[in-house]
Amino acid sequence: MTNPADPAFEARLRAVLPDVAFPAVDPSYFEEPRGRWHPAPGLVVAPGNAEETSALVRLAAEAQVALVPRGGGTGLVGGQTGVDVPHPVLVSLERMRRIRSVSAEEDVIVAEAGATLSEVQTAAELAGRLFPLSYGSEGTATIGGALAVNSGGLNVLRYGTARALCLGLEAVLPDGQIWNGLVRLRKDNTGYDLRDLLIGAEGTLGLITAASLRLYPRPASRSTALLAVPSPADALRLLARTREIAGEAVSAFELISAQGPAFVAETGILADQGLDPFPDWAVLMEIAPAGAGGSPQEMVEAVFDAGIATDGVIAQSDAQRAALWRLREAIPEANRKVGAIASHDIALPLSQIADFIARAPARIASVADVRINAFGHLGDGNLHYNAFPAVGRAASEYRDQRAAISHAVHDLVAELGGSFSAEHGVGRLKTGDLERYGDPAKLAAMRAIKSALDSNGIMNPGAVLRAGTGT
Amino acid sequence: MTNPADPAFEARLRAVLPDVAFPAVDPSYFEEPRGRWHPAPGLVVAPGNAEETSALVRLAAEAQVALVPRGGGTGLVGGQTGVDVPHPVLVSLERMRRIRSVSAEEDVIVAEAGATLSEVQTAAELAGRLFPLSYGSEGTATIGGALAVNSGGLNVLRYGTARALCLGLEAVLPDGQIWNGLVRLRKDNTGYDLRDLLIGAEGTLGLITAASLRLYPRPASRSTALLAVPSPADALRLLARTREIAGEAVSAFELISAQGPAFVAETGILADQGLDPFPDWAVLMEIAPAGAGGSPQEMVEAVFDAGIATDGVIAQSDAQRAALWRLREAIPEANRKVGAIASHDIALPLSQIADFIARAPARIASVADVRINAFGHLGDGNLHYNAFPAVGRAASEYRDQRAAISHAVHDLVAELGGSFSAEHGVGRLKTGDLERYGDPAKLAAMRAIKSALDSNGIMNPGAVLRAGTGT
Repeated sequence: MTNPADPAFEARLRAVLPDVAFPAVDPSYFEEPRGRWHPAPGLVVAPGNAEETSALVRLAAEAQVALVPRGGGTGLVGGQTGVDVPHPVLVSLERMRRIRSVSAEEDVIVAEAGATLSEVQTAAELAGRLFPLSYGSEGTATIGGALAVNSGGLNVLRYGTARALCLGLEAVLPDGQIWNGLVRLRKDNTGYDLRDLLIGAEGTLGLITAASLRLYPRPASRSTALLAVPSPADALRLLARTREIAGEAVSAFELISAQGPAFVAETGILADQGLDPFPDWAVLMEIAPAGAGGSPQEMVEAVFDAGIATDGVIAQSDAQRAALWRLREAIPEANRKVGAIASHDIALPLSQIADFIARAPARIASVADVRINAFGHLGDGNLHYNAFPAVGRAASEYRDQRAAISHAVHDLVAELGGSFSAEHGVGRLKTGDLERYGDPAKLAAMRAIKSALDSNGIMNPGAVLRAGTGT
Repeated sequence: MTNPADPAFEARLRAVLPDVAFPAVDPSYFEEPRGRWHPAPGLVVAPGNAEETSALVRLAAEAQVALVPRGGGTGLVGGQTGVDVPHPVLVSLERMRRIRSVSAEEDVIVAEAGATLSEVQTAAELAGRLFPLSYGSEGTATIGGALAVNSGGLNVLRYGTARALCLGLEAVLPDGQIWNGLVRLRKDNTGYDLRDLLIGAEGTLGLITAASLRLYPRPASRSTALLAVPSPADALRLLARTREIAGEAVSAFELISAQGPAFVAETGILADQGLDPFPDWAVLMEIAPAGAGGSPQEMVEAVFDAGIATDGVIAQSDAQRAALWRLREAIPEANRKVGAIASHDIALPLSQIADFIARAPARIASVADVRINAFGHLGDGNLHYNAFPAVGRAASEYRDQRAAISHAVHDLVAELGGSFSAEHGVGRLKTGDLERYGDPAKLAAMRAIKSALDSNGIMNPGAVLRAGTGT
C-alpha cells in the first residue's frame, strides 16, 4: 500500500515545483463522465514540462506516494480515478498543452500530452494536413489520455488507432527518469518497443508528457452516404464491395441500428433521421481519396509535369514495369559482388535527409578513401548508406577503419535525430551502437523487462542487449 | 552464464520430442549472409508446434540452457548466431510453416512462424488479396524472423513495417508458457501491448510460433516510373507533390544514386539501366490505387448499384454531408439521455459480427428485459453494444442485473474470439474482465513487467491490474 499525499509531502513538492503547479482544487478534477467512481478530493499537481514531472515522480517514488494522471477526464473506464489507495496525487496535464512543432513536409506534429485532440486537429489543418484521430469528446480529450488508452474513434478503418498515429513519446518512467523518445521516424528498430508498451498502459508504466504524431494529406474530395441494408451480414457484404471499388479511400463505415435514431427522435435531439422510416439496419459511409484522383498513369504523368523531374521513363507495359523494378533489385546484388566495407541501415527525419547526404561524405573522407552507394526507401526516411573500397582496392585493406567509418556515419545520424537501425534490428551487430546511441532510460527499462521476463537469461543471450548486461 | 546443451540435455529433449524434431545438423544452420559470425555447430531442434516449443523451452529453462531461434537465417545483424554462450540450442522454425487460415472477408491470414514471406504472399494472392511485406530475401526469410526484427522492405510507405501488418501472435514465453494471442482484431486494448513487445525483441523475450497478419486489396491498376531529379532535396519535393496528386496510392518511392547502377553495370548484372547516362539521383516510383478508381461520388454510386443496399440517400452537398454525420454523433448523445444500464465496447472478428448480433439478444433476455442499441465502427469490427431499460422502466431498477447482463455479453464475445475492450481500455471498470477473459500467460507477463518497472507500485495503482495483484 502506498502512503497518502500528506501536508509534509506537499511541502516537499512545493519546495521544488513552482506555485503555478498547484492549481486550486476544484471538485471537477475528481469526476468522471459516468459518475461511477467517487475518489476523495485531494492534492492536484500540474507539472509544466517533463522536468517538473520528473521531479514530482522522483519525490513520489521516494515517499511511495501514488500518482494518478488525468488528461481531459473523458475516459469511460475509471482510469483517471484514484480510488484504490489513500490520497494519491492527481497529476493534471493542463499546463502541458503546447504544439511544439508542425511539419507538413514530414507529415509530423509534436504535441504535449495535455493538448486536446481538437487543438492538434486545428494545428494540422493550419498546415494543410489532417490529424485523423477523431471522436465525440475530442474538444476535451487530450493526446496524453488518448495514447494512454490507445483510443480509436471514427477513422480507425483508414488510419488506425492512437497507437498507429504515434511515432514517438516523451515520458517519465516510474523511477522519475525522463525517456526522450520523441522520434519523428517511420522506422526505428532499436530495441524493445517501449513506445507501444507505454501506449495503452493507462499510466501504469509511466507518464506520457509529449508525443510525435503522424499527419496525413487532407482528402481532396469526399462523398458520404447513408444506406439501408437488410441485415448486419449485408452491411459486411457492402463493406467488402466498397473496398473493392474504393480501396483505401473508404474512410468511414459506421453501422447504425434503428434503435439509435429512435432514441434520437425520442429524446428530441434531431427531427430528421435521413431515412423515414429508418430501416432496421443502415450504414453511414464515406469515400474520400487523399489525392486529386485520376488514373494512376495520369497521376504519374502529372507528377512528371510538376517540373521537378528533369528526365525520365514511364513504364508503358508490364514488361517495362518489371524491367524498372529489376534495376532496383539489382543494386543490392551488385553491392554484394563489389563487397562493402561497412553497411548502414539508417533512418532520418525526412527533412534531414538532404542535409545528411550532403554532409556524410566529408565525415567519411576524413577517415578513409571510399566509394559511397546511397539508396533506399525514401518515403520512409530509410537509407541504405554503404561504403565500398576505392577503385583498385580491396575491402580487407579497410579492416582497421571499418569501426571509424560506421561511427562517422552513425554520429552524424544521431546529430540529425536519426536511428542507426531502421529495419534490420540490433542483433549482435549493433549492441554497441545501442549502448552508444540509445536513450539511457529506455536501455534501463529494457534491461528491467529482460530481467523480469527472462530471469535465467536463457533466451538468445547476447542479442539486442550484450550478454551480462541484460540481467 | 548458461549451461551447454550437452548429451544429457539432448537425451532429456529426445524423451519428450519426436525424432523429426532433431534434423541432421548441417553447417548451413550456423551460417549468416555476411559471414561475420562463426558459431560452433551444435544441437539443432525443430519443434513442430507451440506445444513442442513449450516443452523445449521448459526443459531449457530448467537446465538453464540457451535457445537461439532461426527462421530463414537471412538477418543481417547476427541475431540468428549463438556466439555468446557455450553450445546453445539452435531452434529451427522449419517444421512450423503451415498457412493455418486465409480470410478474404476479414483480410486476415494466419501463418506459422516458419512460413516464408513468399509463401504468405502466394496464399494471399490465391485469395485475391495482397500481403504487402516484400523484400529481396522474401523467398527465404520467414514470418517469424520478419516479426522478430520488425522488418521493412519496399512497401512500408503505404503499408507499414512488419509490426503494422501484425494483428496477433502465438508465442512461447521464457518460462515455457504459451501465449495464445492470435487475435484477428483491428482493435484490442486489453492490457500491456505484449505483441509489440515481442515484435522487434529478436527472440529475447519469447519465441514467436505463429502470427495473424493483415491483408489488403490488390491494386486494380498501377503505373511505374523512373524519374531523374537534380538532388535528394528535389526527390523530397517530388515525393510531396506525388502525395498531393495520388495520396495513399503512392505505393513505392525509392531513391537511387548513380553509384548503384554503376555497380550494376560494373558487375555485369544488367546492361540497361533505364536512363543513359544514369543521372546522379533518380527516383523509382509506383502509383497503384487499391480500388477501381473514379471520383468518390462515382464510387459511392457504384457501391449503391451493387444491389446490396435497399434504400439510401447520397449527400449532394456539404450541408447534406454534415447532416448525415450529425445523425451519427447524435446517437451517443441520445444514449446518455435515455440512460444505459450497461455499455459494452466490444471487438469481434468481422466474420463473427452478424452471428453475435443474432445471438446476443437471447442471451441478455434470459437475464433481463431490456432494449439494445447496437452501433459502431463496423469497418474495424468494433461495436458499441449497450443495454437500456425497457419502455417505462428506469436504469436503477436493473442495478442487481447489471453484472449478469455484461457477463452474458462478454461471455458470448469471448466465445466468438472477440475482445471486451476495443477502444476504451481496461481502467478500473474492466480489471475483473481482464482476469476473467485475459490470457493467463499474458496476465503473468504483464504482472512481471509491472513489477519490474514499478517495484514501488506507485503508478496509478488499481488501473489495468487490480491493486495488490500487480507486484
